[in-house]
Amino acid sequence: MRDVDDRRPAALAMLKQLYAHTGKAYIIGITGNPGAGKSTVVDAMISHYRAAGHRVGVVAVDPTSPFSGGAILGDRIRMQRHALDPDVFIRSLATRGHLGGMSRSTFDVVAILDAMGYDRILVETVGVGQDEIDVMRAAHSTIVVTVPGLGDDIQAIKAGLLEIADVLVVNKADREGADRTERDLLHMLDLRAHGERKAVEIVRTIATRGIADGSGIAQLAAAVAAHAERTWQGPDAPARAARRAASHIAELVRALLADQVEVALAKRGGLQEFAASVAKHETDPWSVAEALLAGLH
Amino acid sequence: MRDVDDRRPAALAMLKQLYAHTGKAYIIGITGNPGAGKSTVVDAMISHYRAAGHRVGVVAVDPTSPFSGGAILGDRIRMQRHALDPDVFIRSLATRGHLGGMSRSTFDVVAILDAMGYDRILVETVGVGQDEIDVMRAAHSTIVVTVPGLGDDIQAIKAGLLEIADVLVVNKADREGADRTERDLLHMLDLRAHGERKAVEIVRTIATRGIADGSGIAQLAAAVAAHAERTWQGPDAPARAARRAASHIAELVRALLADQVEVALAKRGGLQEFAASVAKHETDPWSVAEALLAGLH
Repeated sequence: MRDVDDRRPAALAMLKQLYAHTGKAYIIGITGNPGAGKSTVVDAMISHYRAAGHRVGVVAVDPTSPFSGGAILGDRIRMQRHALDPDVFIRSLATRGHLGGMSRSTFDVVAILDAMGYDRILVETVGVGQDEIDVMRAAHSTIVVTVPGLGDDIQAIKAGLLEIADVLVVNKADREGADRTERDLLHMLDLRAHGERKAVEIVRTIATRGIADGSGIAQLAAAVAAHAERTWQGPDAPARAARRAASHIAELVRALLADQVEVALAKRGGLQEFAASVAKHETDPWSVAEALLAGLH
Repeated sequence: MRDVDDRRPAALAMLKQLYAHTGKAYIIGITGNPGAGKSTVVDAMISHYRAAGHRVGVVAVDPTSPFSGGAILGDRIRMQRHALDPDVFIRSLATRGHLGGMSRSTFDVVAILDAMGYDRILVETVGVGQDEIDVMRAAHSTIVVTVPGLGDDIQAIKAGLLEIADVLVVNKADREGADRTERDLLHMLDLRAHGERKAVEIVRTIATRGIADGSGIAQLAAAVAAHAERTWQGPDAPARAARRAASHIAELVRALLADQVEVALAKRGGLQEFAASVAKHETDPWSVAEALLAGLH
């Protein structure tokens, strides 16, 4: 799938063709605090869906690992035992450089896995930045994983994460403090509810490395299925599908524009000359940006 | 400074004018693990620089707080005691929506604070995503803050963070495990060094809320000053300044392009019609994106 990442015209043509074969997969996003055990939850979910006869695609997204992809490597080691299963396809997405977007790559890779017949696709983020939240636009249901014992730090669970959660998981629920964590989550959900509160189920799991049937994973899958039924089989489904498509289109427009900027800058031999002149205060960055942009059209 | 965020033509004209008055401030980025106590470190640094007679600007960046800015609010409460000091200017940057970029806003706000005569500018990120790493391009020196006891989790300190660190801080260094954390950091720095290792000083701090002269803060300021002298007063300085200017210009070009996309989409009544058609599989997202882009020019 190297071509997809490279975004060459050939890949674009291929993506257009395969789109007719998509729409069968259910896409589940998994995000949450670093150290919350997201990849062990993913690992257990793979086993769960495989046991139920599904073919499972996994996309692991880590935009903060620009050089080595070290974190992703670690995660993948944990999923190693699925590596020989031809009905499990694991794909890592590291950063695509400064002008790239993780969200567009995720949408594209998910479309390919969908067309390939993987009917449960798990999109896991390693970090929890805005990029990762954007990535979740590609998901039908979003699971946010947290753990007891992260403390009462204001930043322990980010407001933005809570907003996108369809299902909340308290993982490592055998640890002390699980009750309190669940209570805090409920409280935060109530605080954010202006009027009617979005139905967000809270599930406790004890996903452990190497244990195929992690405790609570069946309940988690059931919570996801319940969310799927509520939202993607109800009267609101076409509008939701359109919003999801709009996110994908908007990402692609930005991506194609970014490509044009790169090409235009390369033609001018890059920014070096302008940048040196700005650094010497001979001109200012805003005037240079406007002039460059005018030259694009 | 509302105009800067709105990116109206009037603000652009103002920014161009004030650029001649910039270039005097030293800009220090502070990022690191959530819960590592970044804002208490920032708080202590404000006191340190104020005591040395500097005027201090603070930019707090949180792109993951799209709705309430809750996390930023919490951080600002901790810095409250500086609120009445006219020589301390604290400014929060929450997300600018999907088409915005935190990095461009940071560059712009830093330029304004610089022109206003704040000669030490602290840019603090709340999260640790790719956005926050990009934000650090605006800094002359980048401090990455971590704490003991985050565990040996593979994700405890992200590879991407380590790459951008000029000074590493082990905060809450009175906690058990500080020695091990420092050893681990040294080990990771060695691992990443292909050939010559970048000089990264590790400083231990015990920054505590409300304690003006946090232990280790003077050493931290000295480490920053040493980095400043090594890099911004050496023969490589002009090339570095040009790279920093290039980052700012590139951000602005992307920002102005994004604005054009928004305007063009609004003229067409948004993406609704296209999105519905893609959701029904009547067309595909890649073809729609290409057609929209062709219409822009």
